[in-house]
Amino acid sequence: MKTEFRVAFLGAGRMGLTHLRNLTGIKGVRVVVVADVSLEAAERGKVAAGAERATTDIAAAIAAPDVDVVMITTPTPTHVELLEAAVWAGKPAWCEKPISQDLASTRRVVDQIAKAGLPVQIGFMRRFDPGYATAKRRIDAGEIGVLERFSASSCDFAPPPIAYIATSGGIFVDQAIHDLDLCRFLVGEIDEVFAWGDSRIDPAFAEVGDVDMAVATLRFANGTLGTMQVSRRAVWGYDTRTEIAGSTGKLVVDAPQKTPLRHYGQLQSTVDHFASFPDRFEAAYRLEMEAFFDALREGRPPTPSAADAMETLRVAIAATRSLRERRPVKVSEIV
Amino acid sequence: MKTEFRVAFLGAGRMGLTHLRNLTGIKGVRVVVVADVSLEAAERGKVAAGAERATTDIAAAIAAPDVDVVMITTPTPTHVELLEAAVWAGKPAWCEKPISQDLASTRRVVDQIAKAGLPVQIGFMRRFDPGYATAKRRIDAGEIGVLERFSASSCDFAPPPIAYIATSGGIFVDQAIHDLDLCRFLVGEIDEVFAWGDSRIDPAFAEVGDVDMAVATLRFANGTLGTMQVSRRAVWGYDTRTEIAGSTGKLVVDAPQKTPLRHYGQLQSTVDHFASFPDRFEAAYRLEMEAFFDALREGRPPTPSAADAMETLRVAIAATRSLRERRPVKVSEIV
Amino acid sequence: MKTEFRVAFLGAGRMGLTHLRNLTGIKGVRVVVVADVSLEAAERGKVAAGAERATTDIAAAIAAPDVDVVMITTPTPTHVELLEAAVWAGKPAWCEKPISQDLASTRRVVDQIAKAGLPVQIGFMRRFDPGYATAKRRIDAGEIGVLERFSASSCDFAPPPIAYIATSGGIFVDQAIHDLDLCRFLVGEIDEVFAWGDSRIDPAFAEVGDVDMAVATLRFANGTLGTMQVSRRAVWGYDTRTEIAGSTGKLVVDAPQKTPLRHYGQLQSTVDHFASFPDRFEAAYRLEMEAFFDALREGRPPTPSAADAMETLRVAIAATRSLRERRPVKVSEIV
Amino acid sequence: MKTEFRVAFLGAGRMGLTHLRNLTGIKGVRVVVVADVSLEAAERGKVAAGAERATTDIAAAIAAPDVDVVMITTPTPTHVELLEAAVWAGKPAWCEKPISQDLASTRRVVDQIAKAGLPVQIGFMRRFDPGYATAKRRIDAGEIGVLERFSASSCDFAPPPIAYIATSGGIFVDQAIHDLDLCRFLVGEIDEVFAWGDSRIDPAFAEVGDVDMAVATLRFANGTLGTMQVSRRAVWGYDTRTEIAGSTGKLVVDAPQKTPLRHYGQLQSTVDHFASFPDRFEAAYRLEMEAFFDALREGRPPTPSAADAMETLRVAIAATRSLRERRPVKVSEIV
Repeated sequence: MKTEFRVAFLGAGRMGLTHLRNLTGIKGVRVVVVADVSLEAAERGKVAAGAERATTDIAAAIAAPDVDVVMITTPTPTHVELLEAAVWAGKPAWCEKPISQDLASTRRVVDQIAKAGLPVQIGFMRRFDPGYATAKRRIDAGEIGVLERFSASSCDFAPPPIAYIATSGGIFVDQAIHDLDLCRFLVGEIDEVFAWGDSRIDPAFAEVGDVDMAVATLRFANGTLGTMQVSRRAVWGYDTRTEIAGSTGKLVVDAPQKTPLRHYGQLQSTVDHFASFPDRFEAAYRLEMEAFFDALREGRPPTPSAADAMETLRVAIAATRSLRERRPVKVSEIV
Repeated sequence: MKTEFRVAFLGAGRMGLTHLRNLTGIKGVRVVVVADVSLEAAERGKVAAGAERATTDIAAAIAAPDVDVVMITTPTPTHVELLEAAVWAGKPAWCEKPISQDLASTRRVVDQIAKAGLPVQIGFMRRFDPGYATAKRRIDAGEIGVLERFSASSCDFAPPPIAYIATSGGIFVDQAIHDLDLCRFLVGEIDEVFAWGDSRIDPAFAEVGDVDMAVATLRFANGTLGTMQVSRRAVWGYDTRTEIAGSTGKLVVDAPQKTPLRHYGQLQSTVDHFASFPDRFEAAYRLEMEAFFDALREGRPPTPSAADAMETLRVAIAATRSLRERRPVKVSEIV
Repeated sequence: MKTEFRVAFLGAGRMGLTHLRNLTGIKGVRVVVVADVSLEAAERGKVAAGAERATTDIAAAIAAPDVDVVMITTPTPTHVELLEAAVWAGKPAWCEKPISQDLASTRRVVDQIAKAGLPVQIGFMRRFDPGYATAKRRIDAGEIGVLERFSASSCDFAPPPIAYIATSGGIFVDQAIHDLDLCRFLVGEIDEVFAWGDSRIDPAFAEVGDVDMAVATLRFANGTLGTMQVSRRAVWGYDTRTEIAGSTGKLVVDAPQKTPLRHYGQLQSTVDHFASFPDRFEAAYRLEMEAFFDALREGRPPTPSAADAMETLRVAIAATRSLRERRPVKVSEIV
Repeated sequence: MKTEFRVAFLGAGRMGLTHLRNLTGIKGVRVVVVADVSLEAAERGKVAAGAERATTDIAAAIAAPDVDVVMITTPTPTHVELLEAAVWAGKPAWCEKPISQDLASTRRVVDQIAKAGLPVQIGFMRRFDPGYATAKRRIDAGEIGVLERFSASSCDFAPPPIAYIATSGGIFVDQAIHDLDLCRFLVGEIDEVFAWGDSRIDPAFAEVGDVDMAVATLRFANGTLGTMQVSRRAVWGYDTRTEIAGSTGKLVVDAPQKTPLRHYGQLQSTVDHFASFPDRFEAAYRLEMEAFFDALREGRPPTPSAADAMETLRVAIAATRSLRERRPVKVSEIV
């Protein structure tokens, strides 16, 4: 059993630094090299992780003989190429979600990974949140009986820049993808989706062919029925709520308080909420890393896999098509 | 200004008795006669309300010269006829929801009421729940800005007998009608609805042509997007949750604790939930009565009106049609 | 078994009217006469209860041959005399708390009631709140094991007028008496108390020899240890919180939300709280009446009894003495 | 401004390892040497922190020329000696609480630190919990007005071994010291304390001269009145609750849910609680370290200081004396 891992870490932006700091807390993991197109960023990452070296030569970092795991938090458009490079190098990889907004290139990577038989995990961190992870265990243990209904609401605190939206793949592929991954994680495969959306926060969303809020109904293969709401803005904070109702119980993961403090004022009391997903999912970001290396150590395939990412992408594309064609769309239509 | 009201109360079943007791607490209201096809029930109602007389002659009760308000909690199939009798007698009326499951007869009654110019209120009690009533005031005061999203979940604790289901009009007309009334009360008119449903709790629902759970997406005239979930069973209690999200805030009315007690056990704490809607909406049942007589006293038209009941019925019929035809249905199709 | 009760209701002030309205909802109870020193108040009470007559002759109301139960909500200084009159008349009585602030006269009444063997209940309504009543049942059922610790916090929204304070008997006898009754109801007899208090909200409290806030430690006969906080003002609303911790669990009855509504604003969410005890304990006021007549109907002694009120008063007097003498005081010292 | 710190870390037990991992996430901090009487433990600590060397020679680690900060998590009886060694070496230090259970030796260290003018922080981590830290900021900003009442409840999930209790200094010095530190942090100096305690969980506590639960009333120098409850066992989890009530508001820091998950079962819903303080105060343990180095970096004296620890110890000793002598004890008596 392999117990020591030497990592090439690619991409040292904001989330990259968070991951690098988290890696320092994982036993047996040593970041050897941090690579970024900006040497300054790579150096910052090197310091954060106590790494041996920083570089702008990403390909060399992957190929380096003292590296046996590749971790990718570079911008989305580079994921396919870098995952392929890791596969070619025969090195297990962790990659930030998504692999790609494009189904064809995602499928190509998934096929290569399958052929190589390499362990690859994609960064759907919510699965590792103690709330969602406990929900999953209880569902699997039958604690809420036969699953019947699913409900998700997912709102960002503030919308991203329109320039980002224009190339984001749309609200389902870019934002709701996390909720669709939870659907598959907690309930199972989705058969059919119906969605409506609109551009009501900012007409600029419509101008780039997207919507800024959407609602959907979902039909799962096991008969569960679901609804989903997504919004690019919620002034009350980053807001994610998920309900799974079964024949003998219900599980709800709601947006937690920011702190354990309740403030009482004139005839009322108030609690604070998180503004950002890195704050809300702080533990999840740590735990997804631990889970990846646990799987490597124990020789289990890590999850969510690249194939998981592809299946979830198909659902997101189906929802997007429903939005555009104003009709229910079967996921099986998306090939 | 009229300040004393002499009521003929028709129907003294379980909810009838609740209403009769509540009426005793309303200033200026005197139940003169309780009428029911069962004299025993009428007598029980007479005692509960401290009424003057009990009778099985419902028509005579409506027509009695010492009666100036008619209140109807008889079985649904009798509502149309009794409301018409009240209109013919020229007496203001309060009637338990629904007027009818049938749009044509509902419209006939609504037209007669309009022609007569009589004040009529229909028993959508949730509007008077302190939670929903406060939400409405805050929405109207602009406290959450422009409305953007609506979400409702509505579950009974245990399903009614299949014999009831068979003539209930279906899950949207019979059960979700309360949530659709809240949609119209809190957000505004609904333009279009898409629904999926299934018979998963008990195949007997399918056998009588109904479903036991459903999900839907809603599009409102003002652009608000919504989702809805309905279920005939929730072992965790009668469960009604409503979210209204706007540009500057969100209002959530959730199922309250049954008591202010929290019970801490082995590494967890637990609260109890209500099993029944009469318990959950105890205050609402009292307050809807008070509001009816306040309106009469002040010469304002009481709400929700018979026309409100008809509009909500149209939405429920549209949802039912969507369920059957597996396509989005415009409420304007329902005529 | 007696099933019909004809009530003389004495005192038709604000709380009297609440009780009168609640009585209309209790099966088998008929308010025959409402008596008050103000005929106008008595008439208002008569209307509220649908009573037969109103009067200013309180003695005659008690003695009236068509009256078989006496209920007393007149000002506190009259309670002793009126309870004695009910005892002399041989009629069961319900009396608002306290019997008296004075131990000697309270004892005299308690002795007379005991000698007469009459059912008498005193208005410590909190025992009938669904939260506290459920807590009591669970404690009695052993659901939290051996009782170990008790904690109570009790705050009014706004202080009463100083003129009232001057004759109130002090913060423990006047306000904390409800919490001390809960101590005895939920845990058992109190052996010893230590209290500190101060006049920090308004120096006028000190001027009339009272404090406006106090803290205390309690030692119960069964070994349970407790703390208590009392304040005459809490801008966040009427605030009552009670914890009972045992070897296998803990029960907490906290101030409930005013409505089931949560309001989300800029990065926070807010709930409303009750301002007044009549709102917080609305159900308790109804249920204490029902419990009184249930006991009469079933021939059980109603509780809390006059003897309960006396024992609780002794604890309040012990706490007051501790406050003044700055030392732990045994309840057995208070005779 | 110094920006790089080279740490000798003394003591690599369970909490030591937690601190070592947390240190890896703090910019500019490098653990040079981990020292422990067990070389195995020191080596484990070295790996956890990515340190340069491990040793059993604690004195040498403090004195090492490449070390400029000393951090101490060794067993309590060694704290005085090691803090003195750090002072002699002229190196800033962070030390786990308490300095000592003994006031005389604590005062000796405090005096030496004062004379040396060295920055020293003691490990009362709760001050850095986001809940308590926010409460402090709001109190200082006047958001709840004039402080009036304080309430704390503090329960361990399971009692420590009796062997530990025998030398622990007693429930106030060993356990409630954290709550007493919060008193001083949030409200101010304590003037007088009155306490009762008992051995009810396990008679073994009494046999070693201690109690396993206690209650107390507190009088603060600024007039605030307080109560406190402490217990060595709470089967519902590690339970810490603190209330600070003021003239215009109240702040409550309560035991948070373990996860954002709520589990609905038969007519109830349940949330999980933490069993341990390292889980409850995970963030606080990280943030106290960051605050220490922030203070060093910015040349501010870190808090809580050794003098803070001494003042809090005096209150704990006063409470212990009150417990034994059954009378209110002034903190000024403890010299």
